[in-house]
Amino acid sequence: MIKAGIIGATGYAGAELVRLLAGHKQVEVIWLGSKSYTGQTYTDIYQNMNEIVEGECQDDNIEKLAKQADVIFTATPQGFLASVLLKEHLEQAKFIDLSADYRLKDVKVYEKWYKIEHKSPQFLEEAVYGLCEINRSQVKGARLIANPGCYTTCSILTAYPLVKEGLIDPSTLIVDAKSGTSGAGRGAKADNLFCEVNENMKAYGVTTHRHTPEIEEQLGIAAGKEVRISFTPHLAPMNRGILVTEYASLVKKSDGSLPSEEEIRSVYERRYGKERFVRVLKPGVCPQTKWVEGSNFVDINFKVDERTGRVIMMGALDNLVKGAAGQAVQNMNLLFGFPEEEWLDYTPLFP
Amino acid sequence: MIKAGIIGATGYAGAELVRLLAGHKQVEVIWLGSKSYTGQTYTDIYQNMNEIVEGECQDDNIEKLAKQADVIFTATPQGFLASVLLKEHLEQAKFIDLSADYRLKDVKVYEKWYKIEHKSPQFLEEAVYGLCEINRSQVKGARLIANPGCYTTCSILTAYPLVKEGLIDPSTLIVDAKSGTSGAGRGAKADNLFCEVNENMKAYGVTTHRHTPEIEEQLGIAAGKEVRISFTPHLAPMNRGILVTEYASLVKKSDGSLPSEEEIRSVYERRYGKERFVRVLKPGVCPQTKWVEGSNFVDINFKVDERTGRVIMMGALDNLVKGAAGQAVQNMNLLFGFPEEEWLDYTPLFP
Amino acid sequence: MIKAGIIGATGYAGAELVRLLAGHKQVEVIWLGSKSYTGQTYTDIYQNMNEIVEGECQDDNIEKLAKQADVIFTATPQGFLASVLLKEHLEQAKFIDLSADYRLKDVKVYEKWYKIEHKSPQFLEEAVYGLCEINRSQVKGARLIANPGCYTTCSILTAYPLVKEGLIDPSTLIVDAKSGTSGAGRGAKADNLFCEVNENMKAYGVTTHRHTPEIEEQLGIAAGKEVRISFTPHLAPMNRGILVTEYASLVKKSDGSLPSEEEIRSVYERRYGKERFVRVLKPGVCPQTKWVEGSNFVDINFKVDERTGRVIMMGALDNLVKGAAGQAVQNMNLLFGFPEEEWLDYTPLFP
Amino acid sequence: MIKAGIIGATGYAGAELVRLLAGHKQVEVIWLGSKSYTGQTYTDIYQNMNEIVEGECQDDNIEKLAKQADVIFTATPQGFLASVLLKEHLEQAKFIDLSADYRLKDVKVYEKWYKIEHKSPQFLEEAVYGLCEINRSQVKGARLIANPGCYTTCSILTAYPLVKEGLIDPSTLIVDAKSGTSGAGRGAKADNLFCEVNENMKAYGVTTHRHTPEIEEQLGIAAGKEVRISFTPHLAPMNRGILVTEYASLVKKSDGSLPSEEEIRSVYERRYGKERFVRVLKPGVCPQTKWVEGSNFVDINFKVDERTGRVIMMGALDNLVKGAAGQAVQNMNLLFGFPEEEWLDYTPLFP
Repeated sequence: MIKAGIIGATGYAGAELVRLLAGHKQVEVIWLGSKSYTGQTYTDIYQNMNEIVEGECQDDNIEKLAKQADVIFTATPQGFLASVLLKEHLEQAKFIDLSADYRLKDVKVYEKWYKIEHKSPQFLEEAVYGLCEINRSQVKGARLIANPGCYTTCSILTAYPLVKEGLIDPSTLIVDAKSGTSGAGRGAKADNLFCEVNENMKAYGVTTHRHTPEIEEQLGIAAGKEVRISFTPHLAPMNRGILVTEYASLVKKSDGSLPSEEEIRSVYERRYGKERFVRVLKPGVCPQTKWVEGSNFVDINFKVDERTGRVIMMGALDNLVKGAAGQAVQNMNLLFGFPEEEWLDYTPLFP
Repeated sequence: MIKAGIIGATGYAGAELVRLLAGHKQVEVIWLGSKSYTGQTYTDIYQNMNEIVEGECQDDNIEKLAKQADVIFTATPQGFLASVLLKEHLEQAKFIDLSADYRLKDVKVYEKWYKIEHKSPQFLEEAVYGLCEINRSQVKGARLIANPGCYTTCSILTAYPLVKEGLIDPSTLIVDAKSGTSGAGRGAKADNLFCEVNENMKAYGVTTHRHTPEIEEQLGIAAGKEVRISFTPHLAPMNRGILVTEYASLVKKSDGSLPSEEEIRSVYERRYGKERFVRVLKPGVCPQTKWVEGSNFVDINFKVDERTGRVIMMGALDNLVKGAAGQAVQNMNLLFGFPEEEWLDYTPLFP
Repeated sequence: MIKAGIIGATGYAGAELVRLLAGHKQVEVIWLGSKSYTGQTYTDIYQNMNEIVEGECQDDNIEKLAKQADVIFTATPQGFLASVLLKEHLEQAKFIDLSADYRLKDVKVYEKWYKIEHKSPQFLEEAVYGLCEINRSQVKGARLIANPGCYTTCSILTAYPLVKEGLIDPSTLIVDAKSGTSGAGRGAKADNLFCEVNENMKAYGVTTHRHTPEIEEQLGIAAGKEVRISFTPHLAPMNRGILVTEYASLVKKSDGSLPSEEEIRSVYERRYGKERFVRVLKPGVCPQTKWVEGSNFVDINFKVDERTGRVIMMGALDNLVKGAAGQAVQNMNLLFGFPEEEWLDYTPLFP
Repeated sequence: MIKAGIIGATGYAGAELVRLLAGHKQVEVIWLGSKSYTGQTYTDIYQNMNEIVEGECQDDNIEKLAKQADVIFTATPQGFLASVLLKEHLEQAKFIDLSADYRLKDVKVYEKWYKIEHKSPQFLEEAVYGLCEINRSQVKGARLIANPGCYTTCSILTAYPLVKEGLIDPSTLIVDAKSGTSGAGRGAKADNLFCEVNENMKAYGVTTHRHTPEIEEQLGIAAGKEVRISFTPHLAPMNRGILVTEYASLVKKSDGSLPSEEEIRSVYERRYGKERFVRVLKPGVCPQTKWVEGSNFVDINFKVDERTGRVIMMGALDNLVKGAAGQAVQNMNLLFGFPEEEWLDYTPLFP
């Protein structure tokens, strides 16, 4: 039984962590941090957890928390952890940061896209990018995990095998992503009111969304060279779920022919065949966000378009689970030597 | 480890049973019955259960199934089980019927409201109405459980303590219920198309809905006299969830005063204080269907209206869980001596 | 061609007024008031009106506006108009107030339910309650119109004929109302975020909602005696639409029998047969909010429940049109002698 | 005053035509055709049009209808009009076909993508592709209009100016489209049930959607050469609206630089500056489907991505209006010499 603390427990990602950890038999949550609701009973804010979770919200106090906890989750705005994290904290507890502070290795890229100064770049090298299916072995021994973004988890896992094996030309990669509104957080903004989102679709952050360099860095590592992509997020009228549709030109084989549907499928299956949380769907079946809702699964499939020489890849996940809190728990399981799927094997809710 | 069969496993309630039983460590599902999809891989229909559930859909065969299974769930249209059930089946397996066939003790009432002939009224006396919080002890020893309806579970539990204790006049009871669309089932009807339900609210079955006599029978038992209510269901643009708002005149005390908020609250707390799946909310908090989604909880609260001498009671549940499959699993747990909440303690999903 | 000014043009009701008046050939809008967006281009906030509406948002200035406009609409918070309105303004322009300031004749009732002091009770007597179908003749000669609330318009029109003709006992009247979220306004509150409203139903303001006394006052006038009702509003996951379900005991006739379906229907048809904006549906058809969306219609129907001696009445309207801006335009048409349906005869949008 | 007949008046596109024509002062609808509902009162099916539209549904009879009507709209399945249209009908009435029968000039392409035989290819040459903003002059003199598809109208108009002026390389064009569910029609299929669509996003028809060759043909005419694109439609949980996000590589200028944001904007403005129904939004504003709902507008904008040398174009329309019935009315206005926007200038409904 380990002790966990959560800073930022009343945002949607933080609350999902509380929900998942409430069912985890190896973890006791000892700290429900929330600056906005300090002193209030946690379940007065999240009544879904009534009679399941106990305790009051506590103010930020990383000093105190680091001494008590085995693992600390930070579901906080960009810049928070970078501005408070010290070397001694890392010696006291493991950190899993759901913000972007330690995801990008190049501090200049971080500062350019996030438009804030990075206050502790000295930890960037040590931090492990916690995309379990790709970096499992590094995660196991880490002290500081940069939990990947929601769009990025979906975008990277969907294209990774084909980039890694050189079947697609990464310079042609276009990622068109559609997200439920919980990704926008629980902040009270007119743009996220029910009436503004319902019966509506729009793109946003076109050419400037901060998850772009994160996808580029990780796929660049896979490709062994710098990668630049077009990434366009869209807001969809649903609570949960991300669907990505990715387009790339297939690399012709030495005989001038395109890789076949079967060759591509075998690459996916080699990579993900044994992964508990990645499901490569049957040929012809398109992923649907509802099929993964409430679970830690990513559903993936693809279609070859011989007319254009492109492959269209599709991936779906629940942005609050595999895209945030679920992946954080998966990282925690790896860090502490629990089975990776421990208390994380929820069956998706449908309908 | 017991063996379970499901007849009607591809409707929404049946699929929810499959989902819940997939996580239940004491149960092996050996039969996925579906007349419409016989021979097809189950997860081709419910892709959410990919890599979790295995097997093909099988045609109805109660003879064969009763010999193999310890418990049989029937999530079938009204009249199905009544027309096939024989005495020997009840000696071979326990039955939990999610249809209305054995819910009403009076066969004439059944035939009047359902407009079909009852083919096996001889089992009506034996059948136990499986509302666990009310009939727990009878359930434990039963062979045939009539699993309550979704509206009825919510309507009865919300009013039960006050009817039982005589605090309200049941002849004044009005139940206004709002339901998500999964309650209408997976049949392809134009009325249930997305475009007809979305951005829309309507009442239906006004004065004629079949759950009316079921509520009346159970509350009549509580009141010790015949009860007649007004029950109006409404279709709401959401997948899951039932909310009931119930109105009744409070019975004046001998001194002519109305029962106070505190007196009423103490009646609820006495009745439900130890119930795992009924949550009486704090004063002033109105139940929300989202707070129980995906879980077996019923959330209940009330408000006294001194101006009119009425109490307004509110209850919320997930129609597919506590309103159908969850309650069926709860009944199964009671039947087989498992802890009542075994593998049924899902935390509601929010948002 | 008359000149109109709108104070509060960037709330949802105000924006709907702008939309409706943009199509009205007899009206020029000369003032788009908005304290929050003063100086900004109106269509930067409501891009749906791009290339249709021109001009910038202006700060409140009732002095200046009253001199320029023939009619002033105030779609403002409770208390605003009461605190600024002077006798001379009423001599300069007609006022149609979409707030509650002049709806209740008894200032004490206003102050009790709204919990604010009324700053200009001297105008209460003069103000006309602008429910056109009931008060048409008074509206025509008025200077100050109290435009009815959204819930109240629907609740009153649905029950009015039966109260007026004495067919129901108003002391038994219960109004259970379901509303789309635009009724909650455009203020940025966490409760109204997409993720909190979507896939969710709840009651709110139970026993305390401010539209209660307004319904009671108007139905009391119809009944010729004081009326007390139970009114419970609910928030539904849709943008527009109010559905009310109303329950009341039928008054027995002198021979002890209940009024028949046909007798009740003839009362509705006498009252509403010639009304352009009230549609009494065919027997057995339940009103749906989608059938009136975007229009000024109220759809009404009812069902007699002989088992309980009650009648269940149902009504549906679009809360932003007949429940707010559309009714305001209807009042304006009456005030200025335009045909009542002038530029207001939108066909509802379905699906 | 002209006489119009509609074959297929009870599908969603047909019903939208009825709605729009009900408000058109120059048109009398004399024929509400519906095979499925022959003999039934039209407003029993579409209650939104109660007290606005009169008449019963009539069976198909193109012979009889062509003799009575000035214009015939066919909102029918693919293949219907092609199989019944004769030369003499075209001499009796104008035809506006909302199906795909006469959209593609090459009968082989039609038969390949639609997988049905074309029964009257002799009319293909005469038929005019009714995309008014592009083919206005040809439309005016036509007898047979092929009304464009919903996805295609949006996809073509969004990219047209840049293809026409050679600013983008059409071989790199990728169209990622998101559509509301009314585009799937009113047929009762399990896939389109509320519970299957709500809270869900998916791609469908990947690489095989029939609107692909239509987009390719029209953009090919603009480019002056054959064009092949990737087109992926998605189903979104909303009733109305199509959003397209289009990606293409910019063609470098002779000095090796990319066209600037301003140069691209001026191309859009030259093309659409005077178009009543195309709105090019301000820089930085992304189109939203809700901003055009219920109207005949297409909202368009774009963003240059200097990092990748691509331009991201976005377009939004209401699939039932500009994507179907509205465009059909616009075509009718052109055919009969009415002002193009006649009774078609609805302000979009928001929220």
